[in-house]
Amino acid sequence: MGGKIQSLPGFRDFYPEDCAVRNYVFSHWRAVAHRYGFVEYEGPVLEPTELYKKKSGDEILGQLFHFADRGERQVALRPELTPSLARMASARGRDYKKPLRWFGIGQFFRYEKPQKGRTREFYQFNVDILGEPSRAADAELIALSIDLMRDLGFTADDFTIRLSDRDAWIVFLEEQGLPADSAPAFLGIIDKMEREKPQATAAKLATLGTSREAVDAFIAAAEIGDHFTPLLDDLAARGMADFVKVDLSVVRGLAYYTGTVFEVFDKGKGMRAVAGGGRYDKLCGLISDGAAEMPACGFAMGDVVISDLIKETPHAAAQLATQLATAGATDVYVVIADEVSRPAALAAIQTLRTAGHRVGYPLAATKVGKQFAAAENQRARLALIIGAEHPAITIKDLATREQQEGNIADLLTLVGAPSHLKLNT
Amino acid sequence: MGGKIQSLPGFRDFYPEDCAVRNYVFSHWRAVAHRYGFVEYEGPVLEPTELYKKKSGDEILGQLFHFADRGERQVALRPELTPSLARMASARGRDYKKPLRWFGIGQFFRYEKPQKGRTREFYQFNVDILGEPSRAADAELIALSIDLMRDLGFTADDFTIRLSDRDAWIVFLEEQGLPADSAPAFLGIIDKMEREKPQATAAKLATLGTSREAVDAFIAAAEIGDHFTPLLDDLAARGMADFVKVDLSVVRGLAYYTGTVFEVFDKGKGMRAVAGGGRYDKLCGLISDGAAEMPACGFAMGDVVISDLIKETPHAAAQLATQLATAGATDVYVVIADEVSRPAALAAIQTLRTAGHRVGYPLAATKVGKQFAAAENQRARLALIIGAEHPAITIKDLATREQQEGNIADLLTLVGAPSHLKLNT
Repeated sequence: MGGKIQSLPGFRDFYPEDCAVRNYVFSHWRAVAHRYGFVEYEGPVLEPTELYKKKSGDEILGQLFHFADRGERQVALRPELTPSLARMASARGRDYKKPLRWFGIGQFFRYEKPQKGRTREFYQFNVDILGEPSRAADAELIALSIDLMRDLGFTADDFTIRLSDRDAWIVFLEEQGLPADSAPAFLGIIDKMEREKPQATAAKLATLGTSREAVDAFIAAAEIGDHFTPLLDDLAARGMADFVKVDLSVVRGLAYYTGTVFEVFDKGKGMRAVAGGGRYDKLCGLISDGAAEMPACGFAMGDVVISDLIKETPHAAAQLATQLATAGATDVYVVIADEVSRPAALAAIQTLRTAGHRVGYPLAATKVGKQFAAAENQRARLALIIGAEHPAITIKDLATREQQEGNIADLLTLVGAPSHLKLNT
Repeated sequence: MGGKIQSLPGFRDFYPEDCAVRNYVFSHWRAVAHRYGFVEYEGPVLEPTELYKKKSGDEILGQLFHFADRGERQVALRPELTPSLARMASARGRDYKKPLRWFGIGQFFRYEKPQKGRTREFYQFNVDILGEPSRAADAELIALSIDLMRDLGFTADDFTIRLSDRDAWIVFLEEQGLPADSAPAFLGIIDKMEREKPQATAAKLATLGTSREAVDAFIAAAEIGDHFTPLLDDLAARGMADFVKVDLSVVRGLAYYTGTVFEVFDKGKGMRAVAGGGRYDKLCGLISDGAAEMPACGFAMGDVVISDLIKETPHAAAQLATQLATAGATDVYVVIADEVSRPAALAAIQTLRTAGHRVGYPLAATKVGKQFAAAENQRARLALIIGAEHPAITIKDLATREQQEGNIADLLTLVGAPSHLKLNT
């Protein structure tokens, strides 16, 4: 039988306290998406490996969990959602009014070296608008990302939106007299620029036939150009101008982006992208073999970095702590003071649960003192004490210690309405 | 690039209307678990293949999606949650007050022939009590399963709990003078009895040294015996006696069950198990190599059969339809009557969303008639019309067709509180 079995490296166990943090993030993802009029969808966790070939970035392809299934199909655990979305939207987009406003929350898999902020599985929030070519769609997504960050307790001091556009770099390549097919290699260099030594970047740029100086000058000029004016005006009308900064050094790693790209950037010590996305106007056509061209844009936020950032940011962490303290608490703990009254207690428990209360009680005969300790452990609001004197009962408010006597017939009136917050539902 | 890429056989795309049904089931799973005082956890989707060897039933083992990862580890997509739970509870059970009341909602994978009610991936609701040996824990789980079915709109006419106990069959084997190590083979025969030809079952039983007649007589006697009295009394105290029927022909397929087993059984044409579970008092010890013995019981319900059953059962389907009709609807659709007022509209949209409203609006310049059609399509409650006369605005109730004039400064008062239900959050 072997020794103890461990979980796989890079895969997380979500114990209840971890799962509560996960659900807190999920509930904010859902709530903001709903306010923006998005509807939820989900794709398969396992897809044909072919779906990711040439569509995702090389970085992702090298990290796929892939294998042949029992039917000899080449399959992969999904590393991202966009190719599945493009497949689904291409297949049935006609059945829905455009633009589609779809969001998904699901799990993804990349075989990377596990480290802080990086696991081999992660949850991701994907938000996409399909069928709308205008910058207004890009602005709507950026606004959603800003509101999501504010909803999680962050301010303009904590994060910024770095806004860019791959089309600007296509213009740059033309100006520099470089061929259009050098774009993927060139964008790859720009994408890695921040993490690389300046000399390494300069050498790579020289090989392509341009220079670090030209790149830097272009980046500086874009900040004062008017390429981004419509998008920035849209965000300014929403009162969000302060959150956005044009920064052409952002190109995002995925192969399929075509125009606007942006990231939600942690301004603190972390200096990392918390979310990112952009336009991918060609992907639906590519995946449907030309059958269903559709302009599209979207962004994704993973759960790992944002959860770290919440915990590192005092005001966001305080909001999390407050919500967790009230979520999941028991409404009523039923103390069975005498085993003879267990059937009466079970009937009362059923009445309370049917009315929507969250109810705890001892499964086995237990001393009354231990039962009160259990009630406290479950952060119960009330204790209902049922004993030999049934149908007379006692209700105790566990915060104020106030007690009230009554009759079991008045149980629901005595207890009042369920008080639990619905964070986890 | 190849032709169009399809999804894998047995893997589902959840388009928004499918995802809404999935979320409806999830929300009932969560709500009932919370009322019963369970807290949510989750394990990894990928586990060492070893975790399932000899612990799950042979049927499951033959259906594993398994492969060697890039680090040459033998890994499997999880076919069920209980072994992960046993691993987690063994590793850190000491950190929690006993009994643990844990539930999980996640995705599972089995390579089976896709057919009605059977897919290669499915969601499953797992509810378990660990650290409590008494029948009261079994009763609590059965009660939860009954309340869950009632919450989904089913009645005692639609389903029954088939209650059984593997220990009773151990007694039977002793009475028949059969060796204890014939139990796994014997239970396998009983498990398949309902789906097999009587002659086939009789032949297999004869090989083991017993008979169909002896088995039938034992099953008939158990119905009037008192083995199940404590459990049935517990459920009767909750007013649930009518939902339960003793039936020893139920043994459940998993290898690790030790005592009570039960299933939620569809009484209609389907004649199928909708959920099932039981005691597995040895599994934690087995998985921790003896380090953490812990009595345990639990049950699981998949999403595929229950969703089919909801759709086939008129009163359950009606409840689903009612909840879906109100869930996810837009609160306010902002009609931009004149493009000059788009910035003002964006400001109003932001104000509404910040107040918690679900807001839709046209991303591109659109004729007013088409905007009202979009509002209807999104089942919006109100239309807010903003045009050149801004800051004067019009609010229209899309159900009653009543209109109201006002000023943008009074927007939130005019619109009232967000009315959307929180089904999907």
